[in-house]
Formats: sequence, structure tokens, C-alpha cells
Amino acid sequence: MSELRQQALDYHAFPVPGKIAIQLTKPAETAHDLTLAYSPGVAEPVLEIAANPDEAYRYTAKANLVAVITNGTAILGLGNLGPLAAKPVMEGKALLFKRFAGIDAIDIEVSHRDNDDFIRTVANIADSFGGINLEDIKAPECFVIERALIECCDVPVFHDDQHGTAIVTAAGLLNALEIQGKSLPDARIVCLGAGAAGIACMDLLIACGARREHIFMIDRHGVIRSERTDLNGEKPRFINDSGPRTLHEAMQQADVFVGVSGPDLVSDADVAAMAPRPVIFACSNPDPEISPERVRDVRSDAIMGTGRSDYPNQINNVLCFPFLFRGALDVRARRINTEMKKAAVDALRLLAHQPVPIEVQAAAGVTDLTFGPDYVIPKPMDPRLLPVVARAVAQAAVSSGVARLSLPDRYR
Amino acid sequence: MSELRQQALDYHAFPVPGKIAIQLTKPAETAHDLTLAYSPGVAEPVLEIAANPDEAYRYTAKANLVAVITNGTAILGLGNLGPLAAKPVMEGKALLFKRFAGIDAIDIEVSHRDNDDFIRTVANIADSFGGINLEDIKAPECFVIERALIECCDVPVFHDDQHGTAIVTAAGLLNALEIQGKSLPDARIVCLGAGAAGIACMDLLIACGARREHIFMIDRHGVIRSERTDLNGEKPRFINDSGPRTLHEAMQQADVFVGVSGPDLVSDADVAAMAPRPVIFACSNPDPEISPERVRDVRSDAIMGTGRSDYPNQINNVLCFPFLFRGALDVRARRINTEMKKAAVDALRLLAHQPVPIEVQAAAGVTDLTFGPDYVIPKPMDPRLLPVVARAVAQAAVSSGVARLSLPDRYR
Repeated sequence: MSELRQQALDYHAFPVPGKIAIQLTKPAETAHDLTLAYSPGVAEPVLEIAANPDEAYRYTAKANLVAVITNGTAILGLGNLGPLAAKPVMEGKALLFKRFAGIDAIDIEVSHRDNDDFIRTVANIADSFGGINLEDIKAPECFVIERALIECCDVPVFHDDQHGTAIVTAAGLLNALEIQGKSLPDARIVCLGAGAAGIACMDLLIACGARREHIFMIDRHGVIRSERTDLNGEKPRFINDSGPRTLHEAMQQADVFVGVSGPDLVSDADVAAMAPRPVIFACSNPDPEISPERVRDVRSDAIMGTGRSDYPNQINNVLCFPFLFRGALDVRARRINTEMKKAAVDALRLLAHQPVPIEVQAAAGVTDLTFGPDYVIPKPMDPRLLPVVARAVAQAAVSSGVARLSLPDRYR
Repeated sequence: MSELRQQALDYHAFPVPGKIAIQLTKPAETAHDLTLAYSPGVAEPVLEIAANPDEAYRYTAKANLVAVITNGTAILGLGNLGPLAAKPVMEGKALLFKRFAGIDAIDIEVSHRDNDDFIRTVANIADSFGGINLEDIKAPECFVIERALIECCDVPVFHDDQHGTAIVTAAGLLNALEIQGKSLPDARIVCLGAGAAGIACMDLLIACGARREHIFMIDRHGVIRSERTDLNGEKPRFINDSGPRTLHEAMQQADVFVGVSGPDLVSDADVAAMAPRPVIFACSNPDPEISPERVRDVRSDAIMGTGRSDYPNQINNVLCFPFLFRGALDVRARRINTEMKKAAVDALRLLAHQPVPIEVQAAAGVTDLTFGPDYVIPKPMDPRLLPVVARAVAQAAVSSGVARLSLPDRYR
């Protein structure tokens, strides 16, 4: 057994199983404590909430509680292993919510017969929480599921595999293009992988100014083109009949490559064919579509990002979702809209331009970290992420009219 | 606003909303910690669980996690106020699970169209947890719901309003009868209230030796008799045509009165009509069916119990459910069967016979607490409840064949 494998299993099994537990936030020692926490005192907040449902945010844990929910159909890069097998990942997500943003998150793994059954189940339990983070749900079902749940839930619903990935990718790409002296509207973009992450990345890039006619979306059957008869879900929105049919053809003179597919699918020749000063985000994890070493051999003028922590420019969802939910919860946003996502993109971009605190550099095992080809996106351990991203998201929620509270003082 | 009311609202609102939060049980500080907790390390326990679902008990929080689930149709004595209004009660239950038995419990409030929708929703999320505590679900729906969920869930399902109440009531009653020199099989029993608690109490008393033909179950329309045309759910099982039609008629020469109905429904004349040395458990809370003061005026030979902490013999569910789940979880019981419930009854009975530690007496504000008419059931703050009740339940699960683990060493 490899060392990491044994370490990971031991980490999960000792000294207690799993990674999260419940803690009490109120005294519960004396009989008097319990008359307040339970019968008869608990009747008072019950009656307040019955009279005004918003009082649940005042008298229960709902205000800071996010459910991390999956059906287990697309677990990490491992595929459809069922809901129970996803539990360590969902608990891991809950751990990240708490660690990075102080959000209480609980994982719920949902067995389901079909989409409608899953949607109905999540909708039925949604009011228990202040927000819902959907996770590891396969495409194209994830699009239908998220859309339906946003529609029928009173709390924000966010599929992180889509939008968390898209926000971090967009922030890194925009910074990389800035360094390369290119503009997003003019960029020719290749997206390898047309699943949850690929579709959401391209949608958000378009919202940020990319032009649909410059985007080539590629799945395992090639470029999304109108003559194809196998296109489902969101794919038809990305039909591009302007020429290329294959990855290699699409890569000719491409400015940007976004990989959200699988390991080693990109060749040296593909990279060599790209336009001068390309941006290559090969996010398949742990093994990227093409390794940074191979890219460096072929193109000294490329900016490279991956999903890995051991290379520069790690495209990591944890840069976004804890802080985005923090901002959304703190102004009680009804939903997470495009304005909030774009605000998160801009906040991440700007933060990468700032001088990096010494302790962040030390934690990342680097020195002289400054904005440039090897630093286009903040490091996950940067403590400035919480205030900066959460503030931007909260402000955007308020200014776009989806916040139910005004901006808390600490965000001003 | 009354003082208790303000105290209860403040308790729930300050310094943070609600009563429970998530805590991390594993280190999550360094980048290395996070590679174990999340990607890529988390893939290892995922694969283990995919290969063998039981490994979820080893690598996730499931083993010690109970969901407290309601549809909000019978909240405390307040009625059907909807799922969200029940959240403070459910969080309170979670607090009690943690406080008394170290069990991590999370509340889930379920919106529902009908019973089937509720059952389906709970069944779909059940695998996320090690056990399910149903709460505040109205009769007769609760019987159908619990039965269906026991059938289709792989984890123990327990409706505490039924069985928790029944276990504690049975323990107290049996001890009271012992003191009064009466036997359960010979006792003439009146049960006022034919809801979740009443039905479950009588079922468990029958399992403990009470005779069905000696039981008079009474709802708002009188004694359950065969000529009635309004009997639904479980009520027909308690038809008794042997004479009485009203509460007052049933109380003639009754040995036992169990009230799980509403305040002040029993008259002095009803109590006066009971047999010598009666046992009166008036459990409507906070206002009993008849007050201990009035009973004392009419009958000096009665043993009295209530749901209140400010009188002797408090019939309180917290005497059972945390410890019963502790025992069930620790041997991974597939279900909570009658043997386990009876073991909990016997454990509670026996504990009341033991000398009471000084600190328990002090916490209860009493001295000279010894087994007798004013002490037929342990006090909720008694620290011996955890080992004694959990051990009895775990042993019963093992010996009745529903345990998936052997008895842990600490239970031997």
C-alpha cells in the first residue's frame, strides 16, 4: 500500500471515524439549561417561527448551516460509485467549509430512482438549511437538477463542480491573459470536456466577455458541431461550425486551453500548434491533460495552470466556495446569481495582484511570490481570501437585489 | 413577556443563533492535512466504501451520527405548525443526544405532500446516518411512517414520541406497582390519549405482561369500543367492550391511570373512584391531566408521576433515547426491537432501586432520595444512566440477534 493511501485511510479512521462531529453552542449542563434548550422553553422560539418563518434565522442554526448534497453519480474523478461511497468527499467538503469560512456544513447522501426523485428529496429537506451545495452529480443531469432546485428552494443552491470551478478558472484565465497581453473577447478558446465544469466555465467566460463564436467545446466525440446527433443537455448551446472537428484542429492558433476532462489527452503537437503566448489550464486531477514539464519543453511562452498543489497556479475550488457561501449567507441571499459569481472572479483576480504575505509564501513553500506567469491566482492558504471574496460576493448580492439583509458592518 | 419566555428566546438567539454547530475531528491546518481530508487522499476511503459499504462506519462519521427527523405535524403539545417551526425542538433533541450520550445528531425538517412523500424522502437520505430518530409526527400517520421506514432502511429507526415515552412510562409504572404490591397482569389500566404515546405505552405494557382485556384506551370520544365507527390506525387493536364507555366509568376500580392527553381532563371524582393504592401518571406537559396537589387531597395512597421536573417521578424521554441509541449504535443494531426496549425498561427499573449518588440528589435539589413512592424512576441528571441503559440495550441487541458487532469491551 502506498504511503499516501495508508495515511489517508488512517486519517479517516483514527482516533474516531470520519472528519466532522456536532458541537453544542449553548450551555447544557444544568436542569435549568435544559428547560431553556428543550421543554418547556423551546416552545417559545417554535411559536415565533410559526408566526414568522424568518425567525428561524434568529433562533436556530439555519443561518450558518449549509447542506453538502450528492447522489454519488460523479465522485471526484472516480465516477458513479453511489451515494454512500461519496460520504468521505462530502464530509471533506464540510471540513473545508468550516476550516476556511466558519460555516457549519453537514453532508447528505441521497439514494434516488431518477432525477425527479432526487430533486423532490432535496427540495423537501431544503428548509432545514441556510444554503445547499450540490456536489459530485454527473452531467447532464446536474444541469436539470440544479435548475429545478434553484427554482423551488427558498435558500441558495449552488453546484460547486460547475460554478466553483468556473469562478476560479475564470479568475486565473483572465489574469493569465492580462499577463500575456491578450483580451478575453478576442481569445480563441478550446475547452476539452463538456461536463459540469466545462459547460459552466464557458458560460461564465461568456458572461465575462468571451465570444461564443471563439469557443470550441470538445467532448469524447470531438468538437460540438451541428451535424452531431448525440448532443444532449447544454451542449447544443455550444455548437460551433466554424471549422475544427478535432481537438488537434481546434488547437491551431488557440489562445486558451481549458482541460476538464482526463489525463494525457493533449499532445505536444497540440500545444505547439497554439497561438503565441498561450494560456493552458490542464485541470484534470491528479493527472493533468498534459504535464507542465511537457508544456515547458514545447512552449516557453505559455502560462500553465493545473489542479495540483505541487505546481504553480493551482485551480482549486476551495479558493471560492467557502467564501462565496460566507458572503451569501451573511446577507441572506435568495440565490447565487451571475453578478455574485463575477464579483468572486474579480475579487480573486485582484487579490492575486496584491503583495503576498510572508506567511502565505512560507506555507506554500515558495519565496518571491508576485503576480506573474507562475502566480495568476491566490494560494488556498491565503487568509485574505475570506474577507476579500466574501465581501465582494455580499456586496454584489446587495447591489443586484437578491440580498434579504443589508450589508453587515464588518463588510463595509 | 414572562421571564422564562425571554430567557428561552435569548438562550436561542445569543451569542449565535441556535444550539448546535459542526466541529472538525481531524487536523485541517496544513496543506498536507487537506490532501488527506480532501483530494487526492479522500479517494482512498471512497474506494474502500464502494467495495464494501460497511467501511462507511470506519471512515466516516456515520457510526456515531443520528438524524432527528420531523414533518412538524405534532410539535410538543403545540400541534401541526409545519416543519420549520419544529427546528428548535429538533435541535434541542440533537443537543440532548450529544449532552447525554455523546452522539452526534443533526436535525432534518421535512416538507411533504403526504405520507408516501415523507417516507420516500427519509428513506432516500437514511444511509447518510447511523440511525434515525423520528420526532413530533402526529398519529395515526406516525405508525404507518415508522413501520414503512423500519422496513426499508438499513439503519435503526425509532419514533421517540412513541417508544421513548413508552419505555420510561413502563419502567416507572412497574416500579410503582411493585411498591403498591400489585402485579401488572392483574392491573386494570386506563390510558387517556390514544395518540403516538398512548398506543406505544399500552403495546409495551402488554409486551411486559399487562393483559389487553384489562386495558381501557380512551380518546376524545370515549372508550375504544367495537360499536364506534371512527376508529383508525392502531386504535381497533385496543377495542374493549367489557363495560365502561367514559373516562369516569373506566376509572372505577382502576389500578393504573396513564395520561398522555391534555391538561385537567381528570376530576377528583375520577381519582376517588380508583382502586386502593392506585398509580397515576399524568404526563400531559406542562399541565398534567390532574395536578399532584389535587391527587394528594383525594388519595393519600396514590403514587403519582408527571412530565414535570418540579414534582417527584418525572416521566422524561431523556431518561431513555440517548442511551438506547448509544447501545444500538455501539453494536450496530439493525433495528430497535422489543427485546431492546424491554431491556431499557428493566435497566431503568433496577437503577431506581440503587442508592442515589449525593451529587445527583444535590442536582435534583433533594436529599434522602431512595426507592419509594416519590422515587420510582431515575433522575435525568443521573450519570449512571449512560452505562446502565446503553449496556442493557447493547446486550439485548446482541442476544436477540440484531447486532452486527459483538459487544464492545467497555460493555462487558
